[in-house]
Amino acid sequence: MKSFINNPKEVVNQGLEGLLTNANLTYLDSFPEIRVILKTNIDKSKVSVISGGGSGHEPAHAGFVGDGMLSAAVCGDIFASPSVDAVLAAILATTGDAGCLLVIKNYTGDRLNFGLAAEQARDMGIQVETVIVGDDISLGEDVEQRGLAGTLFVHKTAGALAQAGKSLSEVTAIARKVADNTYSIGLSLEEGQKFQDVEESRFAEDEAELGLGIHGEPGVDKIKMATADELMNQALDKLLEYLPEKQSQNYALLLNNLGSVTPLEMNILLRAFNNSDLAKKVSYLVGPAALMTSLNMKGFSVTVLELDDEITEALLENAAPVSWSIASYGNKKAVESPELPKMLQYDSSSNAETLKSLENILDELISTEKELNAIDEKVGDGDAGSTFATGAKKIKELLDKLPLDDPGKLLITIGRILARETGGSSGVLLSILFTRAGNAYKENTDLGKSLVAGLEKMKEFGGASEGQRTMIDAMQPAFNVLSDSGSLKEATKAARNGADKTKEITKTEFGRSSYLGENSLKGIPDPGAEAVARVFERLTSTN
Amino acid sequence: MKSFINNPKEVVNQGLEGLLTNANLTYLDSFPEIRVILKTNIDKSKVSVISGGGSGHEPAHAGFVGDGMLSAAVCGDIFASPSVDAVLAAILATTGDAGCLLVIKNYTGDRLNFGLAAEQARDMGIQVETVIVGDDISLGEDVEQRGLAGTLFVHKTAGALAQAGKSLSEVTAIARKVADNTYSIGLSLEEGQKFQDVEESRFAEDEAELGLGIHGEPGVDKIKMATADELMNQALDKLLEYLPEKQSQNYALLLNNLGSVTPLEMNILLRAFNNSDLAKKVSYLVGPAALMTSLNMKGFSVTVLELDDEITEALLENAAPVSWSIASYGNKKAVESPELPKMLQYDSSSNAETLKSLENILDELISTEKELNAIDEKVGDGDAGSTFATGAKKIKELLDKLPLDDPGKLLITIGRILARETGGSSGVLLSILFTRAGNAYKENTDLGKSLVAGLEKMKEFGGASEGQRTMIDAMQPAFNVLSDSGSLKEATKAARNGADKTKEITKTEFGRSSYLGENSLKGIPDPGAEAVARVFERLTSTN
Repeated sequence: MKSFINNPKEVVNQGLEGLLTNANLTYLDSFPEIRVILKTNIDKSKVSVISGGGSGHEPAHAGFVGDGMLSAAVCGDIFASPSVDAVLAAILATTGDAGCLLVIKNYTGDRLNFGLAAEQARDMGIQVETVIVGDDISLGEDVEQRGLAGTLFVHKTAGALAQAGKSLSEVTAIARKVADNTYSIGLSLEEGQKFQDVEESRFAEDEAELGLGIHGEPGVDKIKMATADELMNQALDKLLEYLPEKQSQNYALLLNNLGSVTPLEMNILLRAFNNSDLAKKVSYLVGPAALMTSLNMKGFSVTVLELDDEITEALLENAAPVSWSIASYGNKKAVESPELPKMLQYDSSSNAETLKSLENILDELISTEKELNAIDEKVGDGDAGSTFATGAKKIKELLDKLPLDDPGKLLITIGRILARETGGSSGVLLSILFTRAGNAYKENTDLGKSLVAGLEKMKEFGGASEGQRTMIDAMQPAFNVLSDSGSLKEATKAARNGADKTKEITKTEFGRSSYLGENSLKGIPDPGAEAVARVFERLTSTN
Repeated sequence: MKSFINNPKEVVNQGLEGLLTNANLTYLDSFPEIRVILKTNIDKSKVSVISGGGSGHEPAHAGFVGDGMLSAAVCGDIFASPSVDAVLAAILATTGDAGCLLVIKNYTGDRLNFGLAAEQARDMGIQVETVIVGDDISLGEDVEQRGLAGTLFVHKTAGALAQAGKSLSEVTAIARKVADNTYSIGLSLEEGQKFQDVEESRFAEDEAELGLGIHGEPGVDKIKMATADELMNQALDKLLEYLPEKQSQNYALLLNNLGSVTPLEMNILLRAFNNSDLAKKVSYLVGPAALMTSLNMKGFSVTVLELDDEITEALLENAAPVSWSIASYGNKKAVESPELPKMLQYDSSSNAETLKSLENILDELISTEKELNAIDEKVGDGDAGSTFATGAKKIKELLDKLPLDDPGKLLITIGRILARETGGSSGVLLSILFTRAGNAYKENTDLGKSLVAGLEKMKEFGGASEGQRTMIDAMQPAFNVLSDSGSLKEATKAARNGADKTKEITKTEFGRSSYLGENSLKGIPDPGAEAVARVFERLTSTN
């Protein structure tokens, strides 16, 4: 496993050093022996809210230090509780007469180290309260529940009241209330890996785990790999077993990325949640984001906090940590789409000569599909012929609906058909060409000049110019001739000449062939230019 | 590769449906044929700022829709530009007389589709301006530069001015200025993978790539895998080639996670950046966070924007999207650590009898290290003997500094030594026991009663009680006897009896053996209880 680290033994220290570039954060000078991150503007007239624990859960806990959340975070080694001295140092550095609340995730090490530090601080005359958070419902109600990402709700609400100058007993009360009403469960597809020796995964390819901790503890249940919807539903089924049944429940949701799930997948999981009955009771959303990770674990945890007015207000207060954000949650109706211009906005009309020419052009493009694809396979991605043929077939379907007797309107309509019905750059480029040419024709009623004007616009948007192995190499000389003399025969010669010249262009920075070298290109025409030349040749031979 | 998806063909739609649970976002009802995400409170008296492009870059672009940033985002398929119609629909849905700015990443597809939509909208009488962002410096100055995460700076600044009611020309001007002064480069250890068929990595185990795009385009340079510091330096060296040389430069930094880098690693990369000369010129930081990803690419990009007063003000304005945050950047001095209570806070004193007993206890714990470890290997993690021995050795080193003639002070001091010098739960649990026992002894001068009081405190913090296969099973009966009768001989019998009983406890929810079943535990004593019994036996045999 490749990682962005310098030394596996230094990941905790160096990660914190990175975090400390945030100008609102500072640290105790006993770092790195003691790792205490604190906010720069400690106000000892307010309650200090301190949390922490093992590292490997970034951005927790140090990433949640700042006004309105934690006063300080105490950071242990990866998955290892910080020392009693470190916790005591954090208490002493941040606490005045207003006292201190320690928010402790329910793990033996944290409970003991934070607990002993609290005892020692009390012996020194400092008011200290503790709240132990065990939001993980996966182990059932009979055993001590682990602290998971739900701990962040305690940080946020206690931090908000502390920031507002509330007393230690008030801050402690909301922390206990939030801890008592927070329910979490985790689900993962792979365990988190330390950055050193990668161990073989304990997960089979078709396995996931439900109810797992954030220190590599295996899940309570091994489950079958399934869709995002099914996995979310299994997590929610478990969660619902433990949610108290009350009327008028109102929840905040926290959707946590355990490490290496992409934002796109997290949104898919959020959608899965949103399809549950529980979602109807959710008013606020934190995440989806990496909030309380377990190294690079490919998993998520879902936490709900039952709200009352006091908790809601505390959750919504501003908080300085950049890793915290909360949004209103809810579904709303879509906005009506604006009416787009119709593809066929002009009345159809007849013109036998135009019809014949147009049919010839379209038939040529349809019949040479495979041949042009074959050329494109040598110098591009092999679909040039299909792109032209697809557009041509669509136009052919619509022949009796076209304004054939008005060249300007016809060009504009062809532009619209190409924009809507053909994919890829070529369709849009040709659409730009024909749309502009049609608008120009309305003014000058000269097909050659109009095509030249359209080509200019296409070059402007597309960025390519003559000599760069694109269809421009046949169009430019042919359109110029048409514009100057009006001679289809001369224009055809110019198109063929231009297309043939592309066989000698062996280096280009534009279009399909820009990644290929001289040996691949020499002697092969650009398929776009070749198509243009063949269309002109067909028109000449049938006129 | 296991992923949290339902159907590879639906990832874009379903991801957006998840995002849409944010109450500030809505969508056009032509979804999913046309995927336009817009803010709920469109104000057509203000300039509309629209961006978008292919998907797979989440949270970009839809995640940056909201007051102060984008009015709407137009979302294509994975890595594929949205259609002209989709862009046109976004323009029509959000734009009034104030006009519209399209922020376009410099890729052919986006340039063409957004460009044609702009032309079509202009034909419909709508004021539309476009700015094309090409912040990627990796391809050099001669070619068209790609749009990377720096595009977000354009969204933010243009969005701020639009929100403030500035005119289309003012909004366009700042967007162009920011686009012209933004410089990015990407570096990756692995390419991003679509969620369907995983292709073999093009990266060897010792390879990284510098200067790569966000659509799977290979890096301009293949480089050797190296430390985070060295990789960041190579990226910065490349970036510095293209930064204009001016006096008094002042930058905002955006550190982007390209998909699956852990927050911890991103902080290590931020630290690496912070060690560069360029860091001295940085005043603001966006990230590190997943902002403009490339599926699950394991890589980062670093972007700097040269600031002036107008840009800085626009960057710092509030913005609604939860994926946006900016912080002041800078290094500051550490806070002086508070003085912690000394480990040896009492004067040393002599007492031959206490010294002899203590030496016997310590020697017993030191000499049985291997034997206790062997027991622990069967029922725990194999280090119980070492934990006791480590503490004992440390106390033995300090024997001549201990207050041997004052049992209360001696117990407190032993508690402090254990807290500071031994790791793991056992050290802290014993520290709690001895600290409390020492404080109790000061009041009652009864060793047995004091030990019982200490044990109560230890049980309170540790959570275990008698009968759960811990050292309590030997301590509790022995301390009770000492407290009641003061008889060391009887206490020793009680300790041995308690330790032997643990051999029959085959199910426990506490401590080292809580994960093991009956067959593993039957007949094996708990090593902690066994240690307690042996200490008592040693004391009896030498008294």
